[in-house]
Amino acid sequence: MSGETMQVYFLGTAGALPSPLKNPACLMVRRGADTLLFDCGEGAQQQMMRARTGFTVDAIFITHWHADHFLGVFGLVQTLSFMGRAEPLTIYGPEWVHEFAEDVRHMGKTQMRFVLKSEEVLPGMVVPFDGYTVRAFKTRHGITSVGYVLEEDPRPGRFDREEAIRLGVKPGPLFGRLQRGEEVLVTVDGQERIVRPEQVVGVERPGRKVIYTGDTRPVIPAVSEIGMDADLLVHDATYNDTDLARAKEVFHATAGEAADVARAIRARTLALIHISSRYTASTDHLADAKQRFDGEVIAPVDLTMIEIPFRDA
Amino acid sequence: MSGETMQVYFLGTAGALPSPLKNPACLMVRRGADTLLFDCGEGAQQQMMRARTGFTVDAIFITHWHADHFLGVFGLVQTLSFMGRAEPLTIYGPEWVHEFAEDVRHMGKTQMRFVLKSEEVLPGMVVPFDGYTVRAFKTRHGITSVGYVLEEDPRPGRFDREEAIRLGVKPGPLFGRLQRGEEVLVTVDGQERIVRPEQVVGVERPGRKVIYTGDTRPVIPAVSEIGMDADLLVHDATYNDTDLARAKEVFHATAGEAADVARAIRARTLALIHISSRYTASTDHLADAKQRFDGEVIAPVDLTMIEIPFRDA
Repeated sequence: MSGETMQVYFLGTAGALPSPLKNPACLMVRRGADTLLFDCGEGAQQQMMRARTGFTVDAIFITHWHADHFLGVFGLVQTLSFMGRAEPLTIYGPEWVHEFAEDVRHMGKTQMRFVLKSEEVLPGMVVPFDGYTVRAFKTRHGITSVGYVLEEDPRPGRFDREEAIRLGVKPGPLFGRLQRGEEVLVTVDGQERIVRPEQVVGVERPGRKVIYTGDTRPVIPAVSEIGMDADLLVHDATYNDTDLARAKEVFHATAGEAADVARAIRARTLALIHISSRYTASTDHLADAKQRFDGEVIAPVDLTMIEIPFRDA
Repeated sequence: MSGETMQVYFLGTAGALPSPLKNPACLMVRRGADTLLFDCGEGAQQQMMRARTGFTVDAIFITHWHADHFLGVFGLVQTLSFMGRAEPLTIYGPEWVHEFAEDVRHMGKTQMRFVLKSEEVLPGMVVPFDGYTVRAFKTRHGITSVGYVLEEDPRPGRFDREEAIRLGVKPGPLFGRLQRGEEVLVTVDGQERIVRPEQVVGVERPGRKVIYTGDTRPVIPAVSEIGMDADLLVHDATYNDTDLARAKEVFHATAGEAADVARAIRARTLALIHISSRYTASTDHLADAKQRFDGEVIAPVDLTMIEIPFRDA
């Protein structure tokens, strides 16, 4: 479990309007063998083809019901069905998710070959997966909306192999028992001795954490509550700081505001997305964010994939 | 009117499954200042951006309610609204078009800024535009479906300027009256004389004609009835001739069958589209079609634009 890879694919980084090179919102997180989609804008299935991610989607999380964040579900579900998917698929999302799933089930005159489920998400809700969870937090976008934190379960502390050997534990099955938290009995110079796990196993290490805000004004308290020390914060940065007034008006964030959130939670990397098509480059956004946050700042283009390493790797 | 340009954009040429380079079904016909879409698969709005067609859509015609033929309407309508469109837009399509338009109006929690209308299309129905019509014909795809013929009004015959002058008509307003079908009175050597239009204007010339079948088995009688001498026949060619049995089973056509239709109606050009993603190249389709049709055969890639000249140009 603790050695799983984690990759984040920026399948769609556009603002409300797509462009020839930018698809509407879609973030894929692949953690070990699991694949989760966060938002699924129009054309997501083609972006998955272009990024060669395959189509083994395990769950879809929608942040809110503006069309640039969910229209791709229709075509994706259609294609999954066409390809013969049999396993159920669950769409998570705020208020109206059941109505939406019903729309998806009945769109087009084709029989779906798998069951599409829906789960309404409320802020604070935790969806458990094998080795990690997805938690929802409340965002502020003028309609019911949430963001998501994907967080791995804590990993066991580092095993001090040298110390274990010094204490008389022979490499082999006993190592595993200590790592699993069990005491073991060893014989050193004819004397029996108990070695306790805490003598050779360090403190539990946090798992990795990725945050996806969807569209929102900055919500530092909500993000801080469950998002401290995130490895990656993917934040709405529709506007640059010059257009702060506009950002407030339409419930989006500026790049500088996204950086404030990243700084507050001590994020490792901040990814600015949903940059409005009114800007021809992300240069100002990057500069605005870097002025207010010391960590890494990126403005990924569509199909960018980044690996999330363990902090202590 | 008679000098309008006509361009056909192949915005999406994919079969039921898109690919990285092929979008789902969407054909744009631009005739003079008018822009019509025939089918509007997922991602159509981005293809319009890529082809730089602009967004002045005057009407959308859907052939049938399989998702690869209409999902793009949602995003397109969203973007038109976002861009401030105020004029109504009509979606034409068979049975269920009203329900579909209702779905589009209510998808996403955004107020639409223009009126989306819907018109149910029955085979034989004619939708008149300024200088041309769109007619529906019945296709055979296993569900209610139609194809469309866009046909220009006949153009006046060629005006024989030399002959008019020889008959004593002076270049100027009288030329226009003759071309509009009026007799004119001229004086030659002191003698009054009537010049009739038929003396200087040739027979009416047919306008241009483009046929889009959507998904269908070949339907030669239906296409022949309104599609003879088409300038362009855009035909379902999901399969090559080797897979004829499969084509019959799922109500699609092979390339050779598309060619049979083209030959029957004496089309000038046959465009093979909707080629299944199971084929890595269109070579066999082209060969199959050329064996059975002497005219031009093309298998356009996405974003191909072709001009339709007048036959007598």
